[in-house]
Amino acid sequence: MTHGYINDKDDYLKRLRRIEGQIRGLQRMVDDETYCIDILTQVSAATKALQTVALGLLDDHLAHCVVDAARDGGPDADKKLKEASDAIARLVRA
Amino acid sequence: MTHGYINDKDDYLKRLRRIEGQIRGLQRMVDDETYCIDILTQVSAATKALQTVALGLLDDHLAHCVVDAARDGGPDADKKLKEASDAIARLVRA
Amino acid sequence: MTHGYINDKDDYLKRLRRIEGQIRGLQRMVDDETYCIDILTQVSAATKALQTVALGLLDDHLAHCVVDAARDGGPDADKKLKEASDAIARLVRA
Amino acid sequence: MTHGYINDKDDYLKRLRRIEGQIRGLQRMVDDETYCIDILTQVSAATKALQTVALGLLDDHLAHCVVDAARDGGPDADKKLKEASDAIARLVRA
Repeated sequence: MTHGYINDKDDYLKRLRRIEGQIRGLQRMVDDETYCIDILTQVSAATKALQTVALGLLDDHLAHCVVDAARDGGPDADKKLKEASDAIARLVRA
Repeated sequence: MTHGYINDKDDYLKRLRRIEGQIRGLQRMVDDETYCIDILTQVSAATKALQTVALGLLDDHLAHCVVDAARDGGPDADKKLKEASDAIARLVRA
Repeated sequence: MTHGYINDKDDYLKRLRRIEGQIRGLQRMVDDETYCIDILTQVSAATKALQTVALGLLDDHLAHCVVDAARDGGPDADKKLKEASDAIARLVRA
Repeated sequence: MTHGYINDKDDYLKRLRRIEGQIRGLQRMVDDETYCIDILTQVSAATKALQTVALGLLDDHLAHCVVDAARDGGPDADKKLKEASDAIARLVRA
């Protein structure tokens, strides 16, 4: 089975490397004793970037794994739906 | 002026390096074509860790910069309150 | 077509009436000039209750409308997925 | 002691009555078996309206109760800061 995000693997990797850069930037800001509010602005930006990655992965997952399982039917469809619901709840409450 | 978080600088740096490790772990997961739901679980963990850093920085900021400005009074106190409110709104809506 | 949440209609109505009661309680608290932090605690409780309703509706929607459309295939499946993704993004960013 | 939000009491009451109307609207939508996605859109709108109320109350609280306690100094200042931090954490994680 291939996962939904595979087609955009390079794009996801690029975005995650950019987020890694943001986190390293945060370490430099703390090390340089930057003003707290400016650090918080950067933390919010990194959090939003992570959420965008999560929403993208979830879309791909619904459109591939969940739809495929729904078409096949059977207990796997229910399992996949339960997993997706739990992942959505974790994102909403994160 | 020193910032509130300076006393815990090493702790913040340690936490940010751990988050950097989580982001690099996410890149490996995407590269290895790990199951989407497992990647999402790790994204939620990194997001929560970032939020905890943000809440800590904000607490230190309120307890130092905002309280100091409040004691000094004058227009700087209002400016600092406005800045803090905007940062809180960005976190809540992130 | 029937919607996923119809089977639990009474349960959703009961929960929404409880939230309505919480909002009316908030009006009384403001009117009685209750301590701000106590009002905020109640606002957080009402917000969480609304989120739980949203996550429940979304689960039912995925398990019925989206799964049915996936089985039928065709352009409606894509439309339903896009709608669900947009609703999830609104919840995550709310 | 008067609370920060008292000056805007009527405005908060008006906003909370509007949210109460949104929650009653949600009950009608469920009762009329409205399409799930349309209900979710309305839930997101009510959640956002509640968050705006919370951010407003928090701003008023910081600008009055917390600033006053900071000026008076002593253990009450620390208690007020701790309370505000906890309220912010509940909002961010709600």
